[in-house]
Amino acid sequence: MTNSSSDRPSEFDLIAKFFAPLSKSAPGAFGLRDDAAVIAPPAGHELVVTTDALIEGVHFLRSDPPDTIARKALRVNLSDLAAKGAAPIGYLLAISLPKHVGMPWLESFAHGLGEDQKEFAVSLFGGDTTSTPGPLTLAITAFGSVPLGAMIKRSGANPGDLVFVSGTIGDAGAGLHSPQSDYLVSRYRMPTPRLALGCALRGIASASLDVSDGLLADLGHIADVSGVRLSVEAARIPRSPELRGISGEGQDAIVKAATAGDDYEIAFTTPPDMRTTVENAARGSNTAVTEIGRVEQGRGVHLLDPGGNEIPVARPGFVHF
Amino acid sequence: MTNSSSDRPSEFDLIAKFFAPLSKSAPGAFGLRDDAAVIAPPAGHELVVTTDALIEGVHFLRSDPPDTIARKALRVNLSDLAAKGAAPIGYLLAISLPKHVGMPWLESFAHGLGEDQKEFAVSLFGGDTTSTPGPLTLAITAFGSVPLGAMIKRSGANPGDLVFVSGTIGDAGAGLHSPQSDYLVSRYRMPTPRLALGCALRGIASASLDVSDGLLADLGHIADVSGVRLSVEAARIPRSPELRGISGEGQDAIVKAATAGDDYEIAFTTPPDMRTTVENAARGSNTAVTEIGRVEQGRGVHLLDPGGNEIPVARPGFVHF
Repeated sequence: MTNSSSDRPSEFDLIAKFFAPLSKSAPGAFGLRDDAAVIAPPAGHELVVTTDALIEGVHFLRSDPPDTIARKALRVNLSDLAAKGAAPIGYLLAISLPKHVGMPWLESFAHGLGEDQKEFAVSLFGGDTTSTPGPLTLAITAFGSVPLGAMIKRSGANPGDLVFVSGTIGDAGAGLHSPQSDYLVSRYRMPTPRLALGCALRGIASASLDVSDGLLADLGHIADVSGVRLSVEAARIPRSPELRGISGEGQDAIVKAATAGDDYEIAFTTPPDMRTTVENAARGSNTAVTEIGRVEQGRGVHLLDPGGNEIPVARPGFVHF
Repeated sequence: MTNSSSDRPSEFDLIAKFFAPLSKSAPGAFGLRDDAAVIAPPAGHELVVTTDALIEGVHFLRSDPPDTIARKALRVNLSDLAAKGAAPIGYLLAISLPKHVGMPWLESFAHGLGEDQKEFAVSLFGGDTTSTPGPLTLAITAFGSVPLGAMIKRSGANPGDLVFVSGTIGDAGAGLHSPQSDYLVSRYRMPTPRLALGCALRGIASASLDVSDGLLADLGHIADVSGVRLSVEAARIPRSPELRGISGEGQDAIVKAATAGDDYEIAFTTPPDMRTTVENAARGSNTAVTEIGRVEQGRGVHLLDPGGNEIPVARPGFVHF
């Protein structure tokens, strides 16, 4: 009914062409042809919901491939679900498009979403498409489910608990400045939400969150909300061979990795007798997990050298503003 | 832990000061101190979810009062829930802030949300706060609940059905260009989600949607998705005394009202024997409702003059791009 005022087709044609196909496996999305969608968690479950916005020039680069921008936007939200022990169901996408975004960009973007929908068994349930005079802005809201009361919170860490982290730390932060390493760049562009591990940690982890702003900054949230102190042994922080090859083994390199953003790994605590249970959960979910420290009485996060001395950290993580 | 790089407090201080108080009545929001929130619909119900983004310079003006920007952002989402017959529960807010936004703006913005939370019995469940080099951008995702299967869709209109619309049409579109009328300006800045009416229409309306892009454009969606033709009598389209005072009684004025955006009224269809039931629902929800037309076999939306002749409409609604 409405006519296009630019080279792009109308909002409605664009939704029909690129986004409606992504909602096919979700009956509650009504083919993206209604005002809203319907979501019901499985019996005995509740919904876990989270939203993250990504902005061109802040969270991704205009030159990044559109399919990886799409996948990153979806994955950072799925990573939140993973850290909460939630099984993903679907998502809503609010996309604000500047004039320079044309059909090939949108085609690649939608293709990226489709690939990740297959990989993580999620569907698009709805969204909003608008134009913006500013940078491309994406806001995704993701939905998952947990058995009633089973969401893993940030608030359950107790003195004596062990501290673990999944995967490796610092890759993405280095990838942003190391275009020569395909591995590190891919870790920046396409984080891996640790969904299988997150579900396996239900009933095991006492506290958990996803590491997005820097390992030490995010562990600080567990310390704050749980009212405890976290001691982290610098030498135990897992770094990839690629990152070690570029930045070496010095203390500065470790601090840099532990304070860089965009890891999207899971940091969690467990009671001290859970070490073997965690190892089994890690094996069962095919995800590396490393014990990096201990929960104590007190406050804050403290990074320790092999002699047990505190390493000063000027800036524990990414500063949003 | 992180330090501010501008005059604003850190992201975390800002959330604690302005947004966490808005989550107090929602236990599943965990005080906005976790990665995600938990939402469970009441027994026998399912969740209705919708998202809408609002951008400075597109959906609101930089000079608009911050509290009305907040309330409009929330209300346009609640309006979608209303049109679906859903009872609102809460919302997520992703807010992207340009540098010029300071503490007084945020205080007024949060105050506006708080006022509407009281008015509509909703809570903030979570969100995301980031900086942007572009215009202020808000994406709200709203959650409501309906009894299983009771969401009112766009797809149920049948030939013979009656067409209704709530409230008055064209006020907001005129308000954008009529700063001399407080009433019309307030209709642009602060739409009224017709929540009580929407719930009362469950089981009564055969199809429903909220009017945001223009009455005729949005009725076109019901026509498309239901596979029917809608005939609307121009003379029956309800316009406020304020709007009639400014734009008069001519056919052009009616067409302008019926194609202006931002009404956030509910347009719906019902079987022909439901006229009295609709009148009772309108009275019970204290919301004016006007019968404006008829569903027929065919396609599209057709605006008719008192003689039954079609009035040509060049542009049925707001064009997003």
